[in-house]
Amino acid sequence: MLSLKKVSVQSFEDNIAYIHKSCTGYRAFDVKTITRIEIHGGIQPVYASLHITEDINIVKPDELGLNSEAYEKLGLPEGANVSIAQSPQPPSVESVKRKMEGSILSAGEYTAVINDISSNRYSMMEVASFLVACGSFMTAQEILSLTEAIAGENERVFWDNEEMVVDHHCIGGIPGNKVDLIIAPIVAAYGMAIPKTAARSITSCSGVADVMGVLANVDFNETKLKQLVTENRGAIVCKDSLSIAPASKILSTVERSVGVINQQHVAASILALKLATGITHLVLDVPVGPKARIKSMPEAMRLRKLIEYVGDMLSIEVDVVVTDGSEPIGSGVGAVLEARDVMRVLRCKDNAPQDLREKSLFLAGRLLEFDPNLRGGQGYHIAKDILDSGKALEMMNKIIYSQGREAPPVLGQLTRDVVANTTGVVEAIDNNRIMRIGVLAGASQDRGAGLDLIKKVGDSVEQGETLFRIHSTNPTDFAFANGVVEGYSGYEISPRSHY
Amino acid sequence: MLSLKKVSVQSFEDNIAYIHKSCTGYRAFDVKTITRIEIHGGIQPVYASLHITEDINIVKPDELGLNSEAYEKLGLPEGANVSIAQSPQPPSVESVKRKMEGSILSAGEYTAVINDISSNRYSMMEVASFLVACGSFMTAQEILSLTEAIAGENERVFWDNEEMVVDHHCIGGIPGNKVDLIIAPIVAAYGMAIPKTAARSITSCSGVADVMGVLANVDFNETKLKQLVTENRGAIVCKDSLSIAPASKILSTVERSVGVINQQHVAASILALKLATGITHLVLDVPVGPKARIKSMPEAMRLRKLIEYVGDMLSIEVDVVVTDGSEPIGSGVGAVLEARDVMRVLRCKDNAPQDLREKSLFLAGRLLEFDPNLRGGQGYHIAKDILDSGKALEMMNKIIYSQGREAPPVLGQLTRDVVANTTGVVEAIDNNRIMRIGVLAGASQDRGAGLDLIKKVGDSVEQGETLFRIHSTNPTDFAFANGVVEGYSGYEISPRSHY
Repeated sequence: MLSLKKVSVQSFEDNIAYIHKSCTGYRAFDVKTITRIEIHGGIQPVYASLHITEDINIVKPDELGLNSEAYEKLGLPEGANVSIAQSPQPPSVESVKRKMEGSILSAGEYTAVINDISSNRYSMMEVASFLVACGSFMTAQEILSLTEAIAGENERVFWDNEEMVVDHHCIGGIPGNKVDLIIAPIVAAYGMAIPKTAARSITSCSGVADVMGVLANVDFNETKLKQLVTENRGAIVCKDSLSIAPASKILSTVERSVGVINQQHVAASILALKLATGITHLVLDVPVGPKARIKSMPEAMRLRKLIEYVGDMLSIEVDVVVTDGSEPIGSGVGAVLEARDVMRVLRCKDNAPQDLREKSLFLAGRLLEFDPNLRGGQGYHIAKDILDSGKALEMMNKIIYSQGREAPPVLGQLTRDVVANTTGVVEAIDNNRIMRIGVLAGASQDRGAGLDLIKKVGDSVEQGETLFRIHSTNPTDFAFANGVVEGYSGYEISPRSHY
Repeated sequence: MLSLKKVSVQSFEDNIAYIHKSCTGYRAFDVKTITRIEIHGGIQPVYASLHITEDINIVKPDELGLNSEAYEKLGLPEGANVSIAQSPQPPSVESVKRKMEGSILSAGEYTAVINDISSNRYSMMEVASFLVACGSFMTAQEILSLTEAIAGENERVFWDNEEMVVDHHCIGGIPGNKVDLIIAPIVAAYGMAIPKTAARSITSCSGVADVMGVLANVDFNETKLKQLVTENRGAIVCKDSLSIAPASKILSTVERSVGVINQQHVAASILALKLATGITHLVLDVPVGPKARIKSMPEAMRLRKLIEYVGDMLSIEVDVVVTDGSEPIGSGVGAVLEARDVMRVLRCKDNAPQDLREKSLFLAGRLLEFDPNLRGGQGYHIAKDILDSGKALEMMNKIIYSQGREAPPVLGQLTRDVVANTTGVVEAIDNNRIMRIGVLAGASQDRGAGLDLIKKVGDSVEQGETLFRIHSTNPTDFAFANGVVEGYSGYEISPRSHY
């Protein structure tokens, strides 16, 4: 028996166990290769990668150290008695090996793999191997099996009293895209149930959950979500607060880290989340652009067909909408600035970004048209009416009040205006570059940081005129952002107008 | 600038950097996903995975911690000034992605991938992705490119004054297989140059380098290797001591951890090592058996053809020999016991294991027949003559003396005889089980530990008679080995003789 110790180390989704080189338990292991161990003593065993130390400040020979992630999962206090054993490779890895060889796996095999991944029985290398093996070839039936496996059987949200539960999802990659926070109140004001599950940023400047988090609490559980949607028709919740689809977080961390983005897995992970949230009708926005996640129309079309097929098999009505992903949406990039844009649109202010307003109305209209009683083509107009009449704003305030208003973070006061070095017309704005500058300005960690895009594609600019403004709260971040912006601002200006 | 600190953590080939959550350098990173950073200040940058801590006992805000592996690579003292930067994904990862999509990669692409892997620019997940992507399909030309990339251009051993440089290699998986230490002195005594590169155990009870290490020093560099072979015609060196094929260690660690063993990569990694060592003629032993790495004759045949093709393209003359891999070779399993077997065979003792002697003579004969002046079919007889006349023993003593005799470790004195529970004939011995019991007895970490196999397949046994003896030096290991042996000893005894 070893004594549990928390080792303050964050390692991004991987559980790590530390044992001292002189620990007796360690001698039982084949430790010349990377080893996974299992830790017993809690309600459920926790699986972790083994790191060996000779420093008693990290762990003593009679201690077992767990990093922050693993410690939390085990759920025992420091000093608790735990036992360890070398964890054999889970049997489902055989299925991964068969997939590597080109086999078609059964639904049961996908369930076994996903269950082992969600309980951390796979090393990150094994998860990567699974994703790559799936990437080479999957039948439509296999994608369906994978989707159902990720959604799980029991951890779903069940809506007993709702016939139609709708959602909007964007496959992402466009800075400043917070249409969800305008769509949700419009749709809820119309009376449709919309439990919007939103993500925090992983590699971007801000996720929808970060932006909503500026205005209201977004961390609550399934029970609260159902209660809020029943009362208000709409709610915006951070998906990490729900105990649904636990494998999807691990899968997407590895996917983003390695950069294995294959359409099969994009389709499976989106639909699994919607299936687990009990969504019956989904509008899926696929922005296409040279610097978007999806770069061409044929690629968008293949993804659309795939998602429609799997959606049909799961009885989720999916309306895939291909949109323009060539430049950022709205002005603000970063949580506080994006929340400002959202409220300007909801308040129908003159300075509200028109592209954000129009895109939101268009997509909300598509959602409203799921209503069989609505005449085709009326969705957009009804959405516009709900927005312009102030009903959407009223609903948003109700949602914010119900979820719990938060003290808003302050906009970064360290600013710099990035100016045009020539007179002309903004020809293009590079999404990736804007994202990078925003992240360096602090936006991915600090909600008050970000970029305010004053000029958008098609705007005329004079030499020396401001293109966008950097906001930081921290001098280090500010210096980093200033450093990279010198090289390339992401704006392309053609010297004369084409228009 | 941060101050360098060594953090005593072993993590099995992956470099890890620790920074404090309040470290200013850290704010520049997108740290919501797994991040690799580069550390500057040494002769070459070191690449590492980032772990974040809040414990100043691990690192303070102005410190950069490196785990044991990474610290050694950077080559700077503690307290040295270092700078860090977020490491972008190396451009060669694009080739890995293209391979995932089924593309055929060029020789230049394989070189770029392997160079980035050997400089630790890939995370372990990315290495796994590369191996899995290669596993689905590779052309023969691609295997050739991969082999040449692993061998590298400059880190090879060049033999200016040798026309023929020979070696023997076994693809492994058979406990107790130390034929190399009998083959090498026979071949060297004949006058052929044999720079035998041997491995330490990774997941097995002992590697050839561990067994030779009982008798002599095996850690020396290329210059010393060339000098020894020039003087004695033979030497046995641990391959990790040579600075050749640096990617191969990382590749095989990940391969073994995930269990992605594909023939393409087996062929490439063996031939790359031989190419880098300057081998011109190779006998490759492929043991086939139900509990060997290669389980069937068709599988052995495919591997043979593949290795012959790549060998031809590299101008390495390869003689692939398929042998019986159904049971362990010799009596001893574990370094000290195996060294004892080797010396018994070289000394032509009555108690020398006959299977070890015969297999060694057979394979040494195949090597000798690379000599164009030798009449076909004479190899075995000449090998036997060299062994029986004592010339092989004399050569072995010369090699041991030249490499430097080591004080031999003591055989484990904690012993237990595992006995037959029925009278009959030994029908089969499970290689995997013998390996597992040996590892638990301490053999992979402790050269004095291991198993002494008294009975082999075909031997008659009485109930209660000893099948094998467990040797441990450490009571904990001894208890572990005793624990598992109760369940299943690995021996199958049929109640009556079939013979």
